[in-house]
Amino acid sequence: VTQVTGEHVNQVPETTIERLPVYLRCLHEAQAMRIPVISSIGIAQMSGGNAAQVRKDLSYLGEFGTRGIGYEVDSLAGHIAKALGLTQQRRVALVGLGRLGSALLSYGGFGDRGMTWVAVYDSDPDKVGTPAGGGLLVRGSAELAATLPELGPDIAVITTPASSAQEVADALVAAGVCSILNFAPVTLEVPEHVTLRQVDLSVELQILSFHLAEGS
Amino acid sequence: VTQVTGEHVNQVPETTIERLPVYLRCLHEAQAMRIPVISSIGIAQMSGGNAAQVRKDLSYLGEFGTRGIGYEVDSLAGHIAKALGLTQQRRVALVGLGRLGSALLSYGGFGDRGMTWVAVYDSDPDKVGTPAGGGLLVRGSAELAATLPELGPDIAVITTPASSAQEVADALVAAGVCSILNFAPVTLEVPEHVTLRQVDLSVELQILSFHLAEGS
Repeated sequence: VTQVTGEHVNQVPETTIERLPVYLRCLHEAQAMRIPVISSIGIAQMSGGNAAQVRKDLSYLGEFGTRGIGYEVDSLAGHIAKALGLTQQRRVALVGLGRLGSALLSYGGFGDRGMTWVAVYDSDPDKVGTPAGGGLLVRGSAELAATLPELGPDIAVITTPASSAQEVADALVAAGVCSILNFAPVTLEVPEHVTLRQVDLSVELQILSFHLAEGS
Repeated sequence: VTQVTGEHVNQVPETTIERLPVYLRCLHEAQAMRIPVISSIGIAQMSGGNAAQVRKDLSYLGEFGTRGIGYEVDSLAGHIAKALGLTQQRRVALVGLGRLGSALLSYGGFGDRGMTWVAVYDSDPDKVGTPAGGGLLVRGSAELAATLPELGPDIAVITTPASSAQEVADALVAAGVCSILNFAPVTLEVPEHVTLRQVDLSVELQILSFHLAEGS
């Protein structure tokens, strides 16, 4: 689904990191159901994984649970949120306010997870100055170089058409952004010090298609 | 990022399956650049992976390349597309025409990959009967049980609010759908024979946040 570039010295395996947000969502659901304690089997069932994997993943956080009882839901959720850095507020900028950008801005669950939208850019002059949601006004992409460094986002999200994504990435990197999430269906090049994650929304459909091909 | 439930007897590892669409996108870019032959190192650079992993993944498809030369781009793209079942047309239904649903319908890259939208449902009476894109009219969600079996989608995509996603999943399963892609931020329960993939758009931001926390 995704790819990671850039350098990290990393003790927690990338596959484990990718599962932590899924566990966290399950724990939030358990909290909503007023479940105080959950077993690794319970987490596995909710997350679609297996219990041994859950125990191993959580052991990287120093969370071993209590044998025969399980994990305290509140405590475990807090540990995962802390490991993911969600206890600090993350400042996120978005470039490209098309349908996907609008969908992301209105998608529930970012705010709950410590993400704050701090800027929205679009190249369409008709959109500039209009409300983007969350009390933000759309800024013109031409202003990016001049305004983004002061806003100091931790992460930038690219939801432009594929044709302009590389140019936007270059501008973001020049403005000092070191973490980029790209939704445009194109492979981007960024310097080594920048962490880039690539999301291709059609990948999930292709994976389901694989399983259909296999079953037929 | 995602989870898979349901039974499959599967020789190709799930992690390999998840990388195949990424390789395919890179090969399409190579085709666009008129590159006839590509090495595993080249694919690794474009996809953000490593060459040994690329060679191992492709060996599951019986594709070994030519030592010292590489893979023929057209041929390899064809093999991956075939493995992913993309050479057959996949019929896809969408339930929930909010911002995210609209974004998916207009997202480039589904059509290229053998996906055809065959139906769009929404519960809002004001949307029913209006054009949804791709020559389709929005159908009312209440019609789903009566109309979906005849349309026979291979895959259904849920882009409803979290609060109605389980109800929609139940209706899809009752209508005979065996592959579901869920974008609603909630864990769904489906019978064993149904393949469910869960996409949480905030997961990628959380993964970037982990790397920020690690670096700080």
